[in-house]
Amino acid sequence: MPVTAADIALAERLADAAGAAILPYFRGAHGLEAKDDQSPVTLADRAAEEAMRKLIIAERPMDGIQGEEFGMREGTSGRLWVLDPIDGTRAFIAGRPIFGTLIALIEEGWPLLGIIDQPVTRERWLGVMGRPTLFNGKPAATRRCRDLDQAILATTSPALFGDDQLHAFEHLDGAVMSTVLGGDCYNYGCVASGWMDIVVEAGLKLHDFAALVPIVEGAGGRMCDWQGDPLHAGSDGEVIAAGDPARIDDILEALACRGHDHGH
Amino acid sequence: MPVTAADIALAERLADAAGAAILPYFRGAHGLEAKDDQSPVTLADRAAEEAMRKLIIAERPMDGIQGEEFGMREGTSGRLWVLDPIDGTRAFIAGRPIFGTLIALIEEGWPLLGIIDQPVTRERWLGVMGRPTLFNGKPAATRRCRDLDQAILATTSPALFGDDQLHAFEHLDGAVMSTVLGGDCYNYGCVASGWMDIVVEAGLKLHDFAALVPIVEGAGGRMCDWQGDPLHAGSDGEVIAAGDPARIDDILEALACRGHDHGH
Repeated sequence: MPVTAADIALAERLADAAGAAILPYFRGAHGLEAKDDQSPVTLADRAAEEAMRKLIIAERPMDGIQGEEFGMREGTSGRLWVLDPIDGTRAFIAGRPIFGTLIALIEEGWPLLGIIDQPVTRERWLGVMGRPTLFNGKPAATRRCRDLDQAILATTSPALFGDDQLHAFEHLDGAVMSTVLGGDCYNYGCVASGWMDIVVEAGLKLHDFAALVPIVEGAGGRMCDWQGDPLHAGSDGEVIAAGDPARIDDILEALACRGHDHGH
Repeated sequence: MPVTAADIALAERLADAAGAAILPYFRGAHGLEAKDDQSPVTLADRAAEEAMRKLIIAERPMDGIQGEEFGMREGTSGRLWVLDPIDGTRAFIAGRPIFGTLIALIEEGWPLLGIIDQPVTRERWLGVMGRPTLFNGKPAATRRCRDLDQAILATTSPALFGDDQLHAFEHLDGAVMSTVLGGDCYNYGCVASGWMDIVVEAGLKLHDFAALVPIVEGAGGRMCDWQGDPLHAGSDGEVIAAGDPARIDDILEALACRGHDHGH
């Protein structure tokens, strides 16, 4: 079933609802404090996911829901809403306005629609398979990258890699022009908008990456795992986003060193 | 000579002028492209510093100016304006709205006034020695931190440390609750506002850290080098910012491991 205008409108309403639920907790804006050993980010995470689940259940009672906080609600329509209310919890806690709410609609394991929403800066990327990605309502496009040595690479933290993955990442890091750390989902929006060229991460869950695929690909980029295979519900969490699909092979080659030439 | 209201008003005008010069280049907003092998960030850096220098020369012809882009202009007043038009050039290039313009006024090597300005999100920290730090015009305060294991630590990139420094940093990293990467000068604003607890960096130049000292200290925190000494024009670029001064000794102790217990 293709994505409809009503699906998109609902996804946007989910993002609006999540943002409204999150903002009061950001930087202790409205004096909301932790209670019962729950941190502000936990409270914000739950409030945002509850707000989104309520809307989906009301409007699409047959759809499934898989949320980072409240787990799986089975559906019967074959469609699944995958929700990560706050991607970048460390950034959120630290007061940085580059965390994001991730909303994906997937069918048979394949992401069809994705939103990255940053409620503080009021920035939103919307991707729908087969349509141009929108950034705040205007078309977004990745940029060309003629060679890895001209690329800006991002990853949230090298500490999130295992040893072999870190070794592979460092190999790629040495081949690019510049690497920026931190950023979480916001980095993928920057790739979709043509400000960065590559994001490489590992250990991502479905709710971390499902929304990103339609956004990056609808902007002209490509996402895949570290073997070059498309990302779906069964992927292992090793993720590549490239603004220029022509650089995917170079990235895979740079990452493929793991397990070979290091002497541990 | 103490900082006057006129000094503060001038510093704010410098920040306004820098922001106006930078914004057209951010994310290629106004279609400005690199020319003559100059990147957009170089053009933005220069335009912002030129705008600030012009104002200082017009209003304070006797003051010195030390800028990241255009170097030193000697003065005769004993006062020196220290300018970093874009701190966080990698973040700027990558489209992240958490770079900053740094403006400091120093006398006899000691920072008296500092501004961190983020022109995209329109966030500004203003610190003046002996006065409360302001965030967007309202008082900012650091937060208490009872133990390192409850601290949020930030550093822009571990790649900016030398081997011994990295070893020391990793020791501290292992003692805190959470570490966030990236962020540049924005991290110090987050400490001043009580969202983060500690920033530790090395290799900073005077224009990278001078503005930060009055901001963090006017908010109740403390800044020093890795030996615990106050930061001034002759400091070696190893920098600590702690929201809670009571944690400085713990931080110094954690960092002091360098050169001792690693086996290289």
